[in-house]
This record gives sequence, C-alpha cells and structure tokens, in this order.
Amino acid sequence: MPIITLLTDFGVKDSFIGVMKGVIWSIAPSVQIADLTHEISPQNVLEGALAISEAAPFFPAGTVHVCVVDPGVGTARRSMAALIDGQYFVGPDNGLFSLLIEKGRASGAQSLFVDLNRPEYWLPDVSRSFHGRDIFAPVAAHLAKVIAIQSLGDQFTNPVIITIPQPFKTENGWQGQVMKVDHFGNLVTNLTQQQLPVDGGVILYVGTTAITDFVTTFGNRSQGNLVSMIDSSGHLAISVVNGSAQLRLGVSSGEKVNLVFSKENT
Amino acid sequence: MPIITLLTDFGVKDSFIGVMKGVIWSIAPSVQIADLTHEISPQNVLEGALAISEAAPFFPAGTVHVCVVDPGVGTARRSMAALIDGQYFVGPDNGLFSLLIEKGRASGAQSLFVDLNRPEYWLPDVSRSFHGRDIFAPVAAHLAKVIAIQSLGDQFTNPVIITIPQPFKTENGWQGQVMKVDHFGNLVTNLTQQQLPVDGGVILYVGTTAITDFVTTFGNRSQGNLVSMIDSSGHLAISVVNGSAQLRLGVSSGEKVNLVFSKENT
Amino acid sequence: MPIITLLTDFGVKDSFIGVMKGVIWSIAPSVQIADLTHEISPQNVLEGALAISEAAPFFPAGTVHVCVVDPGVGTARRSMAALIDGQYFVGPDNGLFSLLIEKGRASGAQSLFVDLNRPEYWLPDVSRSFHGRDIFAPVAAHLAKVIAIQSLGDQFTNPVIITIPQPFKTENGWQGQVMKVDHFGNLVTNLTQQQLPVDGGVILYVGTTAITDFVTTFGNRSQGNLVSMIDSSGHLAISVVNGSAQLRLGVSSGEKVNLVFSKENT
Repeated sequence: MPIITLLTDFGVKDSFIGVMKGVIWSIAPSVQIADLTHEISPQNVLEGALAISEAAPFFPAGTVHVCVVDPGVGTARRSMAALIDGQYFVGPDNGLFSLLIEKGRASGAQSLFVDLNRPEYWLPDVSRSFHGRDIFAPVAAHLAKVIAIQSLGDQFTNPVIITIPQPFKTENGWQGQVMKVDHFGNLVTNLTQQQLPVDGGVILYVGTTAITDFVTTFGNRSQGNLVSMIDSSGHLAISVVNGSAQLRLGVSSGEKVNLVFSKENT
Repeated sequence: MPIITLLTDFGVKDSFIGVMKGVIWSIAPSVQIADLTHEISPQNVLEGALAISEAAPFFPAGTVHVCVVDPGVGTARRSMAALIDGQYFVGPDNGLFSLLIEKGRASGAQSLFVDLNRPEYWLPDVSRSFHGRDIFAPVAAHLAKVIAIQSLGDQFTNPVIITIPQPFKTENGWQGQVMKVDHFGNLVTNLTQQQLPVDGGVILYVGTTAITDFVTTFGNRSQGNLVSMIDSSGHLAISVVNGSAQLRLGVSSGEKVNLVFSKENT
Repeated sequence: MPIITLLTDFGVKDSFIGVMKGVIWSIAPSVQIADLTHEISPQNVLEGALAISEAAPFFPAGTVHVCVVDPGVGTARRSMAALIDGQYFVGPDNGLFSLLIEKGRASGAQSLFVDLNRPEYWLPDVSRSFHGRDIFAPVAAHLAKVIAIQSLGDQFTNPVIITIPQPFKTENGWQGQVMKVDHFGNLVTNLTQQQLPVDGGVILYVGTTAITDFVTTFGNRSQGNLVSMIDSSGHLAISVVNGSAQLRLGVSSGEKVNLVFSKENT
C-alpha cells in the first residue's frame, strides 16, 4: 500500500487535517499518511510549490502527494491529479506543481495530467471551500488503492505553470533573491553553485551588508559569524552560525541579493 | 487494526504526545496513530468538544479517538470510554464529547458509556496529572486490540454534558456568536442555513460592522472583500477573501453577532 | 517492523521532516514513523537530551529513535548509533543521549555504541549541513529492517556525555534550577521527591517569590493558585492552577530555585 503525504496551508490548530486523514482512511484503511507541512503561508502557492518540489524526490515511487494551497477554491479553477516521474500529485491546478512538472519535462520523464471531473471518486457532498476534504483526499485514497489515474477524469496537457523567480546576469555578477527563510532563520536564495566562480573572489550583498565569508560547512566558523554556503538543497544560503540570519539582517522572502565578482571574474 | 486519533491541548514542543504514542504502540504495535490537533487552547473543553465533533464523523467505524482537555485531572472527575455510532471515544468525563453524545441521541444511534475503573487496563503507576499517558492511551490501545468496551469498567448513563451556545431569536432576526477563529482568521459562528432567509434581505452585524455580502464561495469576490458564507462545516462564517477577518475586525471567540432581517423577512 | 521516532530542532514549516520520512520509507516502506517533537530550541542539545530521555522509556523494545539537534553538523563530530536497554538511538555524538546512556549504565543494561562510518548505509550524496536526511534517516531505516547495529560502523566506548545540572545541598535545604518550561507554562525543576522532606515544613523560593503550597494534584486548589507539585515525570514543578507559572513569575529555563527547610528539617 503506497504512502500518502499532505502539504497544506491549513495550520494544525483546526480539525481540517484530521478530517482529511479520516476521509483517506475511510476509503483506504491501511495507507500510511505523512504530514509534510501545514505551515505554508496562507494562499502562498509559490511557497507550496518550492516545498513539494524539495520533498517529493526523496519519496518512493507510487507515493501520492496531496497538496492544498488553494486561493481559488470554489472558482472555475481546475482540480488535477498528475503522474510525474513515477509519483502522484493531487491538488488544485494553480501552479503548485510547476517545479516538478518542469523538472519532469526537462528530464524526459513520463508525465500525465488529469482533470478531476468524475464525482464518483469524491465525497458525495462537495462544499465550495474545502476541496481538500471533498475531492483531493478521496481521490488520493483511490490512487493509493491502485485506481488508474486515467479513471479519475479527462487527460489534459496544459497545467498552470507559475513563474519561479530566476537569477539574472548583471554587469559584474548576478542578481538573485531570497526565496524562503527557514526555521533556523537561514535565508535561502535562488542562486546556486552555477553562479559562483570556481576560484572565489566574490562578494554577496544583501542591502548594504556585504558577505565575503563563503564556507562549506558551519563547523568552519565560530558561533555568530555571518556566512554564506551552498545548503542541503543546493542553493546559496545566508546564515549566522548557530544563530538567525533573518534576525541579524531583518530581511524576508523576496529580498534582492547581489553576487558581485571581483574584476578578474567579471 | 483500527486507527487511534489524538486530540489534546498539550502542544507539540514537549514529549507528552510522543510518550502517549509509545504507550499505545507498546500495547498495540501495529495500530495507526493520527494527530488531530494538539493546539486546543489550554483547558478549553468547549473548543475541544467542537473540534472532535467536526473531525470524528469522517473517520471509519471502529476508530478510537483519545481526547484530553482535562482541567480536572487528579480530582474526582470520572474517566470514560464511550461507544457512539460505531466509534470509540476515550477521555475525561467533563463534556468533551457533549456534541457527539447529543448528536448520537438525536439520531437514535446506539451509545454506551463506561466508567474507566479497571486498573488492569492502565499503566501500572498512575500519576495525578497525566492521565493521557497513564489511563487514556493504554485504554485506547486495548480497545484497538478489540477488548470489549464493557470490560473496561462499569457502565453509566449520565455523562457530563456542557452547554453549547445556541443562537436565539431576536425581535428582527437572530443573535449568535463567534464559536471559533480558524487558522485563516475566518470567524465561524453558531448560525447556520436554518437562520438565513431563503430570499436574502439580511444584514449580519459584528459590533458596528455591517456585512451585507453573502456569497457561496470566495471565488465570487475580489481579494480583501469582507463577506459571509456557509462554510464547509455548515456554519455561517465571516471571512476576508484571501485575508483574515480576525485581523480586520479584531474580534475573537465569544463575540456576539446579530443577523437582522429586512422588514419583509421579520 | 519496528517503529522509528523523530526528535529534532527542525520545526515543522520547512520540508526537512517530510524529506527524512521519504528517505526512511524509500528504504523501509512499511515502518511506522512518529514525530516526538520538532520544536526543541535551535541547537539546544540539553533540551533535546531531556526530551528523548523522557519519551523513550515508554516505547517498545526495538524502537529506533532518530534525534537531531546538531550544532556541530559538518565538523569532525562523530555520527553515532547506540543500542541502550533494547532500543536504538541514531544521531550526532554530542551528548544528546547522555541521560539515557547514564541511566543504562546505572541499571547495568547492555549498551553498545557504533561510529557511523560505513557510507554504504547512507544516501549516495552526503551534504555538509543535513545529516538527518543523508546519514541518520537511512541508518535508522536499515536498523528498522533488522540490519545489525554492528554492521553500521566501528564500535566505540566513549560517547560524549554532557553535564546535566544537578541540585546541590545548601545550608538549609537544596538549590536546583528550572530545567524546562512546558506548553502549559509549568516550570519543571531538577528537584525530585528525594529532596523533599517527608513531613513538609518547606518553602520553595523562585527569586523572591515564596511557594508554600505543596499539592499532590491541581484538583486540590482553585484556579489561579500558585502551587508546587511532583509532576508526571517525577520532578518538582511550579504551576498556576489552570494558568501559566511562566507568565505569573516571568522566569525561564536556567532560573535558580531554592528549597528551604524549616528549622526542624535542616
């Protein structure tokens, strides 16, 4: 029996998540359910898209990921299920799966998208505001019971893709931005090893703060040092060793960062 | 093997919940355990009662729900297990199961209440302050192993029922109140479709704020609009589209709301 | 199939925990995974050591506990797996398992420590900053699949032990300290029944506040009373009945407390 994961912006203080688990187990009693996170900022589709694209690759083939960050619930926006590189994704067709879809396309992995338009796989009564309970949870449970994805609705080929901010070349380096601030206060940017010169000679600016200390691990520096390193997701992150870069610099997601090469690297 | 759910006011930063899971799996190793929520406001029995009454109906028959919001732990208050409409409930007899018990009675479903007074189904040492670990978790695990509920103690028929605030008729409409504020800042009232006139012509007052925009889905209105709609739990809720009604109006649970009919509806 | 538990300082808003679950299930698909807590204060090894030592004893033999509070990740600090009294522990060798190791030694239970130095049990690529994903999660999954702990690396006998603050005798009683503040605002000290005179006649000082009301259960006193009691973990705790001692007294972990005996008990 495959695994079902849940990623939402529902928080954990209400009964929303419990209800979804109940719906899943009522259809597929022995499925394992894992909470990925329910703390995506309300209605922040980009943040959800980043989170699921980081977590999914570590799950086994056949896993069913239910993702609900759904500002358009109750409107004409499509509900979808996708098969991408051997895993299933269920949620609103609003860009939540953009990164995974693009990665799948780039790698040539098989992808398949289905418009969830067969009510026989939903709860009998569908509300206007909680499709996580009424459509996505039951559909995921049916997928976990090895109902073919093609049975769940009509196939389509044009899922909504949202624009993920990309770094761009400047006169003397690259401009990127802070994509997220993690639990430790690390500022994770959209810059990667690709934008870093092999031989150093580079300064990273966040506002007027210049970071020159590029490390390979926190253990290289003392507590409280402001450093930059390629983090475990492959992105250039700004950190305070055993502290919070967010508190130190007072910036948040969306903040621009500038990687400036010394003359010989330009 | 049935499912055991946990709903408490214990929070998630301490080891309380982990300990309860350990106790359950030590007795019933293959049971599935789901956290419903551990963020009920400390000692708020009414909030717990509302949450479990919303989540439980979506779980399969035979599920065992452990609910611990227990200001009277260590006093003479009874510990109980209940069988209501095919599901089991374990916790203090302090009104936590009021809504489910009343709904069960109203529907004529079979109910059965047991005073947990057989120490052979508890941990060997019972503390004065953590019955979740010492009594409720082991009792739930025994139920999940299909010990008959009647074995756990003496039956009784008068569980504690707490008063759930009900809307009442006013001269020109209904007065209700905000029952909870959810993660999104929606204000969920105790008014339902029953109190709404079929043909509109109604204003909802929260303090001096008048809400006239009754919608069927958020998708009908632009971001930032203050609206009211019947939510996924069947209650009239006050919402800001893709925003927080709590932040906008600055009110919290218990706030009175007035539904005022236009003359022709009075 | 045994149970794997997770205890970290990772929080729940990022994909860290989801990723670790994916890694575990990719290796051991049918293992049960339980979150103990992910809200250990960042890099607070002592707090993590206290939490796992409280939760582990309630889990069945064979359970694998993955604990990651790891300020030294990426440095030369050892990664370890331990077998203590029939349960497995996986994480950094930085003192996280101190209390369990010392308790195991005191009880004469069998213990065994292994330096995780066999990359064949890790993910293929190991980052410098997320050993929870790359080393600890896969090692735990292999243990759950009944790989012998001895296969995971070379045995050693000198795990890092951190100093746990102990109460000490004063002229007229004992000095202890607040070890943690729980979700309810209870101040849990390192004093136990051992330091309390059998016949009362004792005052507990927190700063200038004198607590004379020693109770056996909250139910003995009215809401709002400031009391002290032996809590469910066996420690002397300072509580406000159905309130928060932390809010009342404004103190936090590390605060000294003095137990002062009346003359006849000195």
